[in-house]
Amino acid sequence: MIKFAQFGAGFIGKIHGANIARHPKAELAYVYDVKTEAAEQLAAQVGAQVAASPEEIWASDVDAVLIASSTNTHAELLSCSIKAGKPTYCEKPVDLDIDRVKAVVQQAQNTNLPILVGFSRRFDANHLGIRQALQTGEIGRLEMMHITARDPKPPALSYVKVSGGQYRDQTIHFFDMLRWLADEDPVEVYATGAALVDPAIGEAGDVDTSMLILKFASGAFCHINCSRRASYGYDERVELFGSQGMVVSRRKPRREVTVYKGASIISDGLHTGWLERMEPTFYQALDALVRVMEGEEMEYPTLIDGLKAQIIAEAAVESLHKNRPVKITYWSPE
Amino acid sequence: MIKFAQFGAGFIGKIHGANIARHPKAELAYVYDVKTEAAEQLAAQVGAQVAASPEEIWASDVDAVLIASSTNTHAELLSCSIKAGKPTYCEKPVDLDIDRVKAVVQQAQNTNLPILVGFSRRFDANHLGIRQALQTGEIGRLEMMHITARDPKPPALSYVKVSGGQYRDQTIHFFDMLRWLADEDPVEVYATGAALVDPAIGEAGDVDTSMLILKFASGAFCHINCSRRASYGYDERVELFGSQGMVVSRRKPRREVTVYKGASIISDGLHTGWLERMEPTFYQALDALVRVMEGEEMEYPTLIDGLKAQIIAEAAVESLHKNRPVKITYWSPE
Amino acid sequence: MIKFAQFGAGFIGKIHGANIARHPKAELAYVYDVKTEAAEQLAAQVGAQVAASPEEIWASDVDAVLIASSTNTHAELLSCSIKAGKPTYCEKPVDLDIDRVKAVVQQAQNTNLPILVGFSRRFDANHLGIRQALQTGEIGRLEMMHITARDPKPPALSYVKVSGGQYRDQTIHFFDMLRWLADEDPVEVYATGAALVDPAIGEAGDVDTSMLILKFASGAFCHINCSRRASYGYDERVELFGSQGMVVSRRKPRREVTVYKGASIISDGLHTGWLERMEPTFYQALDALVRVMEGEEMEYPTLIDGLKAQIIAEAAVESLHKNRPVKITYWSPE
Amino acid sequence: MIKFAQFGAGFIGKIHGANIARHPKAELAYVYDVKTEAAEQLAAQVGAQVAASPEEIWASDVDAVLIASSTNTHAELLSCSIKAGKPTYCEKPVDLDIDRVKAVVQQAQNTNLPILVGFSRRFDANHLGIRQALQTGEIGRLEMMHITARDPKPPALSYVKVSGGQYRDQTIHFFDMLRWLADEDPVEVYATGAALVDPAIGEAGDVDTSMLILKFASGAFCHINCSRRASYGYDERVELFGSQGMVVSRRKPRREVTVYKGASIISDGLHTGWLERMEPTFYQALDALVRVMEGEEMEYPTLIDGLKAQIIAEAAVESLHKNRPVKITYWSPE
Repeated sequence: MIKFAQFGAGFIGKIHGANIARHPKAELAYVYDVKTEAAEQLAAQVGAQVAASPEEIWASDVDAVLIASSTNTHAELLSCSIKAGKPTYCEKPVDLDIDRVKAVVQQAQNTNLPILVGFSRRFDANHLGIRQALQTGEIGRLEMMHITARDPKPPALSYVKVSGGQYRDQTIHFFDMLRWLADEDPVEVYATGAALVDPAIGEAGDVDTSMLILKFASGAFCHINCSRRASYGYDERVELFGSQGMVVSRRKPRREVTVYKGASIISDGLHTGWLERMEPTFYQALDALVRVMEGEEMEYPTLIDGLKAQIIAEAAVESLHKNRPVKITYWSPE
Repeated sequence: MIKFAQFGAGFIGKIHGANIARHPKAELAYVYDVKTEAAEQLAAQVGAQVAASPEEIWASDVDAVLIASSTNTHAELLSCSIKAGKPTYCEKPVDLDIDRVKAVVQQAQNTNLPILVGFSRRFDANHLGIRQALQTGEIGRLEMMHITARDPKPPALSYVKVSGGQYRDQTIHFFDMLRWLADEDPVEVYATGAALVDPAIGEAGDVDTSMLILKFASGAFCHINCSRRASYGYDERVELFGSQGMVVSRRKPRREVTVYKGASIISDGLHTGWLERMEPTFYQALDALVRVMEGEEMEYPTLIDGLKAQIIAEAAVESLHKNRPVKITYWSPE
Repeated sequence: MIKFAQFGAGFIGKIHGANIARHPKAELAYVYDVKTEAAEQLAAQVGAQVAASPEEIWASDVDAVLIASSTNTHAELLSCSIKAGKPTYCEKPVDLDIDRVKAVVQQAQNTNLPILVGFSRRFDANHLGIRQALQTGEIGRLEMMHITARDPKPPALSYVKVSGGQYRDQTIHFFDMLRWLADEDPVEVYATGAALVDPAIGEAGDVDTSMLILKFASGAFCHINCSRRASYGYDERVELFGSQGMVVSRRKPRREVTVYKGASIISDGLHTGWLERMEPTFYQALDALVRVMEGEEMEYPTLIDGLKAQIIAEAAVESLHKNRPVKITYWSPE
Repeated sequence: MIKFAQFGAGFIGKIHGANIARHPKAELAYVYDVKTEAAEQLAAQVGAQVAASPEEIWASDVDAVLIASSTNTHAELLSCSIKAGKPTYCEKPVDLDIDRVKAVVQQAQNTNLPILVGFSRRFDANHLGIRQALQTGEIGRLEMMHITARDPKPPALSYVKVSGGQYRDQTIHFFDMLRWLADEDPVEVYATGAALVDPAIGEAGDVDTSMLILKFASGAFCHINCSRRASYGYDERVELFGSQGMVVSRRKPRREVTVYKGASIISDGLHTGWLERMEPTFYQALDALVRVMEGEEMEYPTLIDGLKAQIIAEAAVESLHKNRPVKITYWSPE
């Protein structure tokens, strides 16, 4: 059994904690949260111990660490985790300040420590299916990719203000996804957007509705459209257009119920939130880390992947502000 | 150019007349209808001549005859047409009295005259597609067939009373279809039904909602469900289940328009009537007769097919009344 | 926490055991299986104790019992459970001998003990959706029901021989489902079938491909088609046709992946087995029993429901053998 | 009857000629083509007269003119038609040289002459459906539009070289469509593309695979993706995303035939060419001109619409070459 310590017992922490508890090869030994009550509640549910301080965890014999605390604590905790030599599952983003991300990447360099950054969509069965179709040559060479990413409703304005903006907070998942699907880094991005959903988001210096075009060195293109509010539910789908065919990761309906009535055919719509749609991927991501720790060779979103997605986000923000395409310059640790 | 004479200028006659007129290898020379005004109207539209009497037509040099007059005149007109040696398109049914049908079949025997009975669904692109899938072995050996046949609303009660009942009037199309799809005659039928839509239909001795099971000698089964009233439009679909797969002739939507709104996905529904859905098949059926007259070898619903569908309908009516399966006994001309 | 004892640690027992273990309000205290090794394995996985004998369980302080042992032991265990006053989840069928079922029903009469018979499909989200549409009047009055029930492949011949035949083993789930959906008992059944998949099944006196028509007292009809082998996966779907609309519980695809290639659109097909499709319903059914034990009022498949489904199956078997419709006569305990 | 004269009897001319012939309120009086044989063939088919010269037509008593000759003749013929005061259906584009288009627009100014430019997609039932959904407020305020426009295969290289390039030749249909759907002119365009399908297209200075983003003054965005080669058929679809819902003009399949086989569900794919998909719209566009000539008030793509689409195309070409967003400056006649 792999003994985990977990930082954070909030909304997403509860999901991770329950997943660790039900994983046959993992158990949750410690939970730490600055809100002790939250830590106690989760610990009670899964039979874990509340850690009085982070230090207690670093001093313990846990085998792995899961970081699900608030964003501004990720980088430091991850740094400690690397120092302690613990394989780590770190929620995205690593940090909103790209220099802090680089510092952690530099620190992790040459350690060979498995660090999984929480781009869990990589484990979605549908998205895996289209990636496989591309990789096996079923649709030929990739020429165009289309990603639709729409949340049912904007987050609280207070969150928007500290989130880093739509690209660093929402679109970043798809900056990772396009790299993973294409198996190639984009070299240029053009981003444009506006606050069409809520003027207050615009007043906070952010956008809520965006369209982007990215170019790969291979010549292929990727379009992303992102909205903070789809009135009809959580809408995420991807299309890969290749020289010999197209493959689509379709919308997933809530149920397979259809009513035929009058002049209409009425089916159940989409999930009411991203979590309802994506929840299974959290377990799959955790399972990937466990397998890697057990010596299995398998792909997972690494710290470098986390950095690259943020580098693309930075370029997208620049493009948005300058209203012109921006070259993406990657950075590598020494 | 093949010169046609047409009997009947009513609802369905107008469709046939226009099809003859627009067929590049056919022209409508004469129209006859007991209602002279109807004949004149159609004749004017397509540049044909009104025949003063059927005799004028039989004495003319027309190459072919299309019978679209009222059902009770079909057998006699067809008999005249056979006597005159004219290839004929005869609307279904040949006659509600099976003995009169047999008499005409007997008369046509050994004449080699192309007589096409108006089971035009055989020319529907979707139904042709599933037949081909079965014939080419794509789904293996046929084991089960399902036919759904639902009209948007019942015909006028006055029509119901003279129509011969649901099986001789509505289901008969599908008695022909199942023989054509399976390429085999059914040997037994169990039919059950009720007047669920309109009690007046029940009082007239008929049913409006039916379920049937037919058996083929090969062991395969066919289910038909038939309603006189589908509140959501004209619903016709067929499923062939075979030992190695299944093929479906799906419902056809009016348009490809879908709205995502709230918790629902709302698409355009079905056609509002069978004609909206099946109209192209009338032209295809006419074209088949033209091709056959030009020497092309091709399948079409023959007079024997017309007879067999009616024999099945008679057995179904008997089964309905006796509430037990009834063996189907076919009849062949000498 | 509700303490469960479970009989049976085989294929289906493992699923039930794991569900009890992960239910927040239940725990598995004892496992008994005639194969001690199987019991030990399951007990180890979920932290339960192996019971040395059924008597140990009846003498224990467990709150509830789950019977997942082989069919021929159900009735006796259920009888003991009733004697011991334990709320029970009993896998279907209660017994293949209808008289033994009646005896247990008689015994349970007036006990008010919650006994849930494992027709877990009643808890499927899609099927629940169409039932709700009917109950809320969305499609008007029910006129026709269509149930398609096809397993990917036949069970082992040895199982077929002791299973009671296709109707008592496979179709029985849908005899329960049609009663539950229509909220009404069928009064007559016509069943016909053949061994089209495997002649050996026919030699064993059974059929593997069947079509049935059932009538409700309200006048509505139900068609069921059942196959032991759908080469394309597990195919279960239901259609309710009403006076004001239709509602469909559609097939559920494995994934939402579609490839457009050449002249075809190729989507992922169906689940490879009934368990892949129906597994979530086992947990839901267990949860229903737990809720009922906690005092919640909710519907669940009762012992009477189990009996009625078997009475319909007996009538269907009689109809198959006599090739005529058979009236269904229900039985009630005194 | 409206008497038409038609210029051009090539591929698209044959379609227009046949449509005029079958329109109940129109007839084709004259056909002119520089290739006399082509003119003779079409004239024979529809019972028209071959004009010896364009002058013969301008001197005739025809009521309307249809211009379907080669692109470089459109502007001059249209100019003659305006001079002659003939309502005109003019195939797109009016001219590849925007200054010649402006000259014709200027000439037509204040004439009130119905001039319909052949953006016939405006008459597609599906596209009309989504426009209506937007206009009636069903999806709220428009925020994002997505247009996918993919031809099955590139035109001949010789045609590519004189076509004006992908934007002036292919994408232009969708520059018109987005204006028509949004009921608003775009103010800025960013276009990027490459010759991914055929390097020879790149060597000819053109692209075959493009992505574009356009902005409306209202703040809404439009994405277009355009390919000269979709290996799976003609793929055209449009999505309108609004503040209260989304509406989609879906792909239209060739047939409603689906095979379930093994692990896949295989449906008939798309049409093999744009004509197979769009042919009905040509008749609808012709019918619109006829109705306008008869005094009916109805929308149709005007000469100004033709000009505006070309102005957008010019801006897109500039954006492609400069790799930056370009403001779109419209021009109005005095």
